[in-house]
Amino acid sequence: MHNPQVPETLEGWSVLHHMFRVRWNDIRKLGVAARREIAQSAVASISTPDADAAHTGLAHLLGHKADLMVIYFRENFEQLSQAELQFAQSPLCEYLEMTTSYVSIVELGMYDMTAKIHHQLAERSLKPGSEEFDRAFDEEMTQQRKRMMGRLYPEIPNRRYVCFYPMNKRRGEMKNWYMTPFDERGEMMLEHGMIGRNYAGKVTQIISGSIGFDDWEWGVDLFADDPLVFKKLIYEMRFDQASVVFAEFGPFYIGLQFAPANLTKFVEGATPSL
Amino acid sequence: MHNPQVPETLEGWSVLHHMFRVRWNDIRKLGVAARREIAQSAVASISTPDADAAHTGLAHLLGHKADLMVIYFRENFEQLSQAELQFAQSPLCEYLEMTTSYVSIVELGMYDMTAKIHHQLAERSLKPGSEEFDRAFDEEMTQQRKRMMGRLYPEIPNRRYVCFYPMNKRRGEMKNWYMTPFDERGEMMLEHGMIGRNYAGKVTQIISGSIGFDDWEWGVDLFADDPLVFKKLIYEMRFDQASVVFAEFGPFYIGLQFAPANLTKFVEGATPSL
Amino acid sequence: MHNPQVPETLEGWSVLHHMFRVRWNDIRKLGVAARREIAQSAVASISTPDADAAHTGLAHLLGHKADLMVIYFRENFEQLSQAELQFAQSPLCEYLEMTTSYVSIVELGMYDMTAKIHHQLAERSLKPGSEEFDRAFDEEMTQQRKRMMGRLYPEIPNRRYVCFYPMNKRRGEMKNWYMTPFDERGEMMLEHGMIGRNYAGKVTQIISGSIGFDDWEWGVDLFADDPLVFKKLIYEMRFDQASVVFAEFGPFYIGLQFAPANLTKFVEGATPSL
Amino acid sequence: MHNPQVPETLEGWSVLHHMFRVRWNDIRKLGVAARREIAQSAVASISTPDADAAHTGLAHLLGHKADLMVIYFRENFEQLSQAELQFAQSPLCEYLEMTTSYVSIVELGMYDMTAKIHHQLAERSLKPGSEEFDRAFDEEMTQQRKRMMGRLYPEIPNRRYVCFYPMNKRRGEMKNWYMTPFDERGEMMLEHGMIGRNYAGKVTQIISGSIGFDDWEWGVDLFADDPLVFKKLIYEMRFDQASVVFAEFGPFYIGLQFAPANLTKFVEGATPSL
Amino acid sequence: MHNPQVPETLEGWSVLHHMFRVRWNDIRKLGVAARREIAQSAVASISTPDADAAHTGLAHLLGHKADLMVIYFRENFEQLSQAELQFAQSPLCEYLEMTTSYVSIVELGMYDMTAKIHHQLAERSLKPGSEEFDRAFDEEMTQQRKRMMGRLYPEIPNRRYVCFYPMNKRRGEMKNWYMTPFDERGEMMLEHGMIGRNYAGKVTQIISGSIGFDDWEWGVDLFADDPLVFKKLIYEMRFDQASVVFAEFGPFYIGLQFAPANLTKFVEGATPSL
Repeated sequence: MHNPQVPETLEGWSVLHHMFRVRWNDIRKLGVAARREIAQSAVASISTPDADAAHTGLAHLLGHKADLMVIYFRENFEQLSQAELQFAQSPLCEYLEMTTSYVSIVELGMYDMTAKIHHQLAERSLKPGSEEFDRAFDEEMTQQRKRMMGRLYPEIPNRRYVCFYPMNKRRGEMKNWYMTPFDERGEMMLEHGMIGRNYAGKVTQIISGSIGFDDWEWGVDLFADDPLVFKKLIYEMRFDQASVVFAEFGPFYIGLQFAPANLTKFVEGATPSL
Repeated sequence: MHNPQVPETLEGWSVLHHMFRVRWNDIRKLGVAARREIAQSAVASISTPDADAAHTGLAHLLGHKADLMVIYFRENFEQLSQAELQFAQSPLCEYLEMTTSYVSIVELGMYDMTAKIHHQLAERSLKPGSEEFDRAFDEEMTQQRKRMMGRLYPEIPNRRYVCFYPMNKRRGEMKNWYMTPFDERGEMMLEHGMIGRNYAGKVTQIISGSIGFDDWEWGVDLFADDPLVFKKLIYEMRFDQASVVFAEFGPFYIGLQFAPANLTKFVEGATPSL
Repeated sequence: MHNPQVPETLEGWSVLHHMFRVRWNDIRKLGVAARREIAQSAVASISTPDADAAHTGLAHLLGHKADLMVIYFRENFEQLSQAELQFAQSPLCEYLEMTTSYVSIVELGMYDMTAKIHHQLAERSLKPGSEEFDRAFDEEMTQQRKRMMGRLYPEIPNRRYVCFYPMNKRRGEMKNWYMTPFDERGEMMLEHGMIGRNYAGKVTQIISGSIGFDDWEWGVDLFADDPLVFKKLIYEMRFDQASVVFAEFGPFYIGLQFAPANLTKFVEGATPSL
Repeated sequence: MHNPQVPETLEGWSVLHHMFRVRWNDIRKLGVAARREIAQSAVASISTPDADAAHTGLAHLLGHKADLMVIYFRENFEQLSQAELQFAQSPLCEYLEMTTSYVSIVELGMYDMTAKIHHQLAERSLKPGSEEFDRAFDEEMTQQRKRMMGRLYPEIPNRRYVCFYPMNKRRGEMKNWYMTPFDERGEMMLEHGMIGRNYAGKVTQIISGSIGFDDWEWGVDLFADDPLVFKKLIYEMRFDQASVVFAEFGPFYIGLQFAPANLTKFVEGATPSL
Repeated sequence: MHNPQVPETLEGWSVLHHMFRVRWNDIRKLGVAARREIAQSAVASISTPDADAAHTGLAHLLGHKADLMVIYFRENFEQLSQAELQFAQSPLCEYLEMTTSYVSIVELGMYDMTAKIHHQLAERSLKPGSEEFDRAFDEEMTQQRKRMMGRLYPEIPNRRYVCFYPMNKRRGEMKNWYMTPFDERGEMMLEHGMIGRNYAGKVTQIISGSIGFDDWEWGVDLFADDPLVFKKLIYEMRFDQASVVFAEFGPFYIGLQFAPANLTKFVEGATPSL
């Protein structure tokens, strides 16, 4: 059944963000060869035979929250489970302390499309909730899904800086996103998207949904060549209607992405390049 | 005494959810035989002689909150105490760190039935609070209980994915579930149940009550073959009246159930099958 | 001076709740004799020469918050200090990790009596705040105190299950217990007490005040032979006016009381009996 | 410049509250002589050559939050830094775990006096903000300061029980102390002080300001011979206008003061006397 | 595109605040030479070849939150990453425990200037959003940036006391900074700045923006010769309109700055001088 109050969503990669503190005091005691060895075996443990069927990103996070973030894009939770357990067996983990994580699924929210399909099916005189209605609706969604495959299963953007944070839509006693009429929500999301579009080219955004999987409703990953863009974009968005009234933000993680091949350099205590 | 403002409830299994982080760094140092041994003795410690009188489920949780969740369904708190202490003596615990837990009792809330019985007894001119009234009421509840035994003492659903979270009904300064008239609450719970029914077949839900036992009012366990169903269901429910205004959610735990017999595989660092 | 806005209170035992996690991994390595020895010396450390002048209770708590709760009823804070330090010297503590605690004093709130005495003294034309007024008031309170000695200095109820939680009266921006007129508060407390009375025989309640001593305003200990009674009672109370609008609840602790003599059994990893 | 909306304050001692858990398990392994030695050297490390220029208090705190509280009254933050570092070098610290602390400066809030001086200078036709006005104002404050030296630089009251807690004035969306007109705030503080005066003789209070130094706005130290007085006083104050609407309380710490000379007894695991 | 609702900002140094607890118990066991050695190598690790291109400050923080704060001013996040990793390799870190941190960029908010430029360009009949408009706007900002270089890339003020805290503008259900019209926000910021100006000479303030980088919106560093100035300034500001209604404050850190050359003295357990 398709509820006209609920925006349809399309889902892609299953996603796991893993944050670790590095036990530098223990790593310092290792020789060059040992450092290289644990780095290489860690890289091996996150590699996947088919580069199109999975992606893994690495970043050096600034500050005390974590030193290393590993981002897994996988086809399903089964593969996330395998990836997580495989990495846990890597000798590098002897020198890591997991501080936090985030579980989600890449998601495209479809306010526009939801309204459009309901409208079209109404014009075709299909009765909401009928088997025919649902079949027609599902067919439309299947089409959408085909068109969106690139955005549902993206690579991890190859940009130096990454910013991750989870967020909610407010469910306050007075201001409550989920009590707001569908059309108003749709308009706000449109305005919200417009601001994002002004930053097209400067920032790449991947939204993942985490209702039922983690403690916030969505995870946001931003990627850019200049971290200042994150500040400018999020500050400007803080003034749009959807955010000003309804956005609640979790902790922010900021870091520098680097190529898995350069994990050795990181383990040697130097900033690795992308 | 039966208070007409308070929905009657029926109770079944006593439930304990136990979440553990695995100390993989220490497990890695064990040989194959040692791993098998600690896994097998842990399985033995959670086994029960009478498979109908108790159930124990295992799941690999994703993310940093925990790696292993053990779900105990037992006849009473006495048996929960025994189960908890017995597992704590298992050598596997040397490699586990308890991160959190949840204590509750399987519960069926009976808004409809509560209203119906009060109504019927009024028609029979029984005086609320009288001994006769209470006896008649208790008899009805006993009947209900007999009809509901299967839902009060279910097996742990044999589905790959499990989602657990605790929740409250909001007791805010303006929006307060417990100040809402009984009939309105009843209608909202009905609407809430309708949405759930649309997911019948795709998801199995077990509600347990924890007022007086743990820090939230209810625990919710969802079981499904596809984790995406959790996200779709909980998102849609977020728009129904009972949730949009009154639901407050605790942390979410998401994992893959596996058969106790496959605990060895998990301890070997691989994703075990159901 | 006796402030007519402030309900008079009577105080009894000084109370300390101590919650500990047991380091089962370390205890498991001890032989039978060693376990018995540490259990016996711990029991000795909490014993008091005069059984009427102090009581100490033990409970196995369910879940991760703690495994062992020790409840001290003592004559004053001096004795609580001694009890706490004495127990800390016990070798059992090598195997315990203190997770939390609660400091309070058994308290009887006297809304009814406060109003009655103010009324009586007004009829005797005593001027509030005068020395004569205060002396007459104190005399009445002394009488009350004599009548209440049994409830101010109770034994720890000899029932299998114990439920402990701290609570506040809400001091919100809109709903504020302390801004509510004395008479309304009195009526709400009366209604609140009525519900409790319906559970007489099934549950024993001990309220202790902790303003100035700990982070919540009151501690509540409930004792029953069946833990389901806690859930039923607290759920029903959640609908009374005093709770629905004004009650804020802290964490809940649920456990099985056991006789000090059976601490050895607990240390052996089995559920000890009462 | 003297802002008529802001009550003037006078400041005295720089204050550091340090809370520690004692590692009793490690202390238990020490012999009598070793215990005495670490206690004596700790006492030496907190002693000051000039007894009038600094005070240090010790207390055994009840419950899990901490076992030992050290209160430093010093002339400035430079001396607090020295005291803190000196104590950290004491061998006793091998057996202590710092759990929390509080940094503040003894403060007298001067609502009455602020209004009075503004009024007097207005009568002398001095223009607020003018150099003349400020000079005259500062002269008045200097006079006040001289009169208040005893309350700005008190000794630590020689009473058995100590209660410490931090607090804020509420800055809510509806109830906001800082939006309340100066005169109303002044009246509320007057009423608040009146209640305190009813407890004169029974309790000694020292207020310290911590805006800019720690996470709450004020720290409150209460000292009494009977801890029940804390409960009675704070409960009654909870009903005065300043507290009922605007007070927000942090964690409460309750303990028994003891003489530095008796630290040895405490380290031996017994309650030391004052 | 320049959004007239969003104040323009200019950015300077990339900033990292790092807070550490010192493991004094371990340092105490080191001899004089070893202490000097680890201090000197730590100083070397934070030194930069070009004193104009980077600054590093050190402070002894009071209380349990941390003992040592390191402030990094760097040209970009790449250099912050290098600085953080380089310091982590220093042997001093064996004796440090990172407790918290803050990531931000020195920021000048330009309410006045934003309004002025929008006004000027409107007078020149440039159409907002047009390429011409944006180019003209950017040119003005470039001019501003040149004028502000000294404030964007300041040295760390050479004053004994430092106070650091993060803050937000409130986004409440009723009081919401981001819903407030631009002109009102501008006026409040002006008033806010006025109060600051009254403390000119006594306190030096550096604001850094952290939207997208850390969990609060701004970080505030205050530097003064007398810590009392922090308390007076922040207390007075708490009454201005921008703060009274909209400011939310995070934890406060207070400490004594010292010269890197004196780190040895600190490691020896004594208060080092500036």
